[in-house]
Amino acid sequence: MKYAILFGGNSYEHEISIVSAVVLKKILKADLSFIFCDENREFYAIPSIKLNAKTFSSQAFKKEKKLYLKQGGFYFKSFLSENKLECDCIINLIHGRDGEDGKIAALFEFYGVKFIGPRLEASVLSFNKEWTKLYAQSIGVKTLPYTMLRSYENKDFIPNFPCILKPARLGSSIGISVVKDLKELAYAKDIGFEFDEDLLIEEFKNNIKEYNLAGCMIEDEFIFSIIEEPQKKDFLDFEQKYLSFSRHNQLTEANLSEDLKEKLKENFKKIYNPLFKGALIRCDFFILDEEVYLNEINPNPGSLAHYLFKDFNQIINKLSKDVKNEKKISITYSFLHSINGQKGKL
Amino acid sequence: MKYAILFGGNSYEHEISIVSAVVLKKILKADLSFIFCDENREFYAIPSIKLNAKTFSSQAFKKEKKLYLKQGGFYFKSFLSENKLECDCIINLIHGRDGEDGKIAALFEFYGVKFIGPRLEASVLSFNKEWTKLYAQSIGVKTLPYTMLRSYENKDFIPNFPCILKPARLGSSIGISVVKDLKELAYAKDIGFEFDEDLLIEEFKNNIKEYNLAGCMIEDEFIFSIIEEPQKKDFLDFEQKYLSFSRHNQLTEANLSEDLKEKLKENFKKIYNPLFKGALIRCDFFILDEEVYLNEINPNPGSLAHYLFKDFNQIINKLSKDVKNEKKISITYSFLHSINGQKGKL
Repeated sequence: MKYAILFGGNSYEHEISIVSAVVLKKILKADLSFIFCDENREFYAIPSIKLNAKTFSSQAFKKEKKLYLKQGGFYFKSFLSENKLECDCIINLIHGRDGEDGKIAALFEFYGVKFIGPRLEASVLSFNKEWTKLYAQSIGVKTLPYTMLRSYENKDFIPNFPCILKPARLGSSIGISVVKDLKELAYAKDIGFEFDEDLLIEEFKNNIKEYNLAGCMIEDEFIFSIIEEPQKKDFLDFEQKYLSFSRHNQLTEANLSEDLKEKLKENFKKIYNPLFKGALIRCDFFILDEEVYLNEINPNPGSLAHYLFKDFNQIINKLSKDVKNEKKISITYSFLHSINGQKGKL
Repeated sequence: MKYAILFGGNSYEHEISIVSAVVLKKILKADLSFIFCDENREFYAIPSIKLNAKTFSSQAFKKEKKLYLKQGGFYFKSFLSENKLECDCIINLIHGRDGEDGKIAALFEFYGVKFIGPRLEASVLSFNKEWTKLYAQSIGVKTLPYTMLRSYENKDFIPNFPCILKPARLGSSIGISVVKDLKELAYAKDIGFEFDEDLLIEEFKNNIKEYNLAGCMIEDEFIFSIIEEPQKKDFLDFEQKYLSFSRHNQLTEANLSEDLKEKLKENFKKIYNPLFKGALIRCDFFILDEEVYLNEINPNPGSLAHYLFKDFNQIINKLSKDVKNEKKISITYSFLHSINGQKGKL
C-alpha cells in the first residue's frame, strides 16, 4: 500500500501535527509520501528526508512542490504537464482545526479522495465538546454534568470550585484552566474566550481516574488497543501530552477489573459505530465509582495512538482497504425534462 | 455588489437548485455570475443567457469555462494565464447534499471564500433531522416526539399509526411517507432506507398547522420575513414545493395572533443565533394547542425564500457585507523551536 500522510493545517495544533507525521514516518512500514498543509492552507509535497522541524520552522518547505486538490486526488505541475500524486489512501493527521473539525473530511468527500480519518458528521460532533455531550446522551453514554458559558451571553454564572474550564472546540489542553476560586475564574475566562466563544465548565474531580482506549472497526469487527491510564498532574498540558506520543517502549495495560475493561469497550463501541467508521479514534474516559464517563473523543489522536497497539501496521493496512466514501448520486434531469415538457418555460 | 451564485451539486435536489438559480437571476438586481457544480462535482461558469433547463439536461454546460477552487476563490484558465472569477460574495444555492451538509461551507472556509450560507457546524446540525432535534432540545426549542429507525440495527419497532417516516438527511420531502398501517410501514421503510440508513418516525398529526418563517441577522439585528402558512395535502411533495417558489405574487401573512407570531420569532432567534450567522434560513414550525414546535431548518431554502420578503435585494446586499469567515490562526513554530533547542532531535 502507498499512503500519503496529510499534516499541518491552520490549527493551534499545527506543530503537534508535524511531530505526529515525523513519528509515523518512523513507525509505518509502507511506501509513504507527505503532504504538508501550511498556515495559509497551501499544500506541499515534502520529501521524506526533509521531514524535520527545520524544514517548517525555517519556511524551507516553500521551495517544495506545490500540490492542489482536484477530483480524484492531489496533483502537481511539472514542465508542460500535470501529474497526480500517486497513493492508495491518505491518512488525515491534521489535529484540531481543519483536520478534526470536518474541513478535510468535506474536501476529501467532495473530491472523491479515499482517506483514513473521521467523516464530516463525526468530525463536527467530536470537535465541539458540547455536541460531544449531546451525542453521548443520545446514544446512552454517560458524561460529567456541565454548564456552557457563552461570550455573547455575558452570563455571570458562578460554578462550584474547583472547576475546569474548557474552550468548546480545542483539543490538546489548549486554553483549559483548573479554577480554584472566583479570582482565578475571571482570568480563566479571559484565557478561554481568547480561543473560543463557547466555554464548557465541569466540576474538577481530583480523585477521578482517566483511561484511554483507541480502536477502529474493520469489516464489522472491532479492534481495540490496550487500555492506558495516562500520567497526569492536574491535567496534561500541551508539551507533556505530545512529547509523550513519540515513545516507543511497550506500555503495560491499566490495572482494571475485567468487568470495567469490558464496560470501557462497550462504551467505545456505542460511540464509534457507525459515526466514526473509516477512522482510528481514541476515546478518553473517566471512571468514577465504577461508572464509565466519556471525557472526549480524539478522531485523529496524536501519532494515531500507535503506541497503544501491538500490530499498528497491520491495522492501518486493513483499515485503509475498508474505508468508503459516500455513494455518488446519479442525476437524471427527469424533473427538468418534465417541467420543460409541460410548460417550455424554464 | 457582484455576486456569484453557486448551484447544482451531487444532490437529490440538484435539479431544484437549477430552478432556484433561474429564479434568483430574475429577482436579484445585481451584477451576477453563475457557478454550476455538476454531478461529478466539477465547476463551470455558466453565462447568464444560457441559464436555462436545456443547458443542463442536454449536457451543453460542458462546453463552458471550467472553474477550480484555490485560495481566495474560483479561477479559470485562459490562453497562457490564469484568471480569477471576480465577485464580492458567493451565494451558496446548492440544496441538500454538498450545499447544506457542510461540504461547501468547509470548502469555502478552507479556501477563504466569502459566502452567504450556513457555516460548517450549522450545516451538519440542520442537515440531519436527528441532530436538529438534539440541537433544538439543547436551546429550549420544542420538537415533536420521535423514534429513530436504523438500517444497521434491524429494529422491529412498531409505531402508532398514522405516522410519518423521514430519511434523516434529506430535504424537499424526498423519501418521506405517511404510513397508516403495518403493511404500508414495510413499504415506507424500503423507500426510506434507499435514501438513508437512519429514518426518523413521528406521529402524523392531521390537524397540525405548519408555518414558515425566514430571516437572518445583520449587525446584531434580526430581519424577518412574513409568516406563511403553506398549502398542503397530507404533506408537500417535491414538485408542489418547488414549483411554488418561482411565484411572484404578494403573499398575505398567516392569520395568527400577535402572541403566536411573537412566539415563532422568539423560537427563530434561539435557533439562529449564533449558529446560523452568515445565512438566510427558513424555519418550518408546527403550532399545536398554542405551542410552537420546530419541524425543520432550511439553511439554503428554495430560491432563498425571496417571495416571503418585501425587500429581498436590500437584505442580500446588507447580509453579504456582514458575513465573516473564521479568523486565521497564526503559526509561530515556537514549540518546534523549543524542542529543537532542547534536544536537537526532531
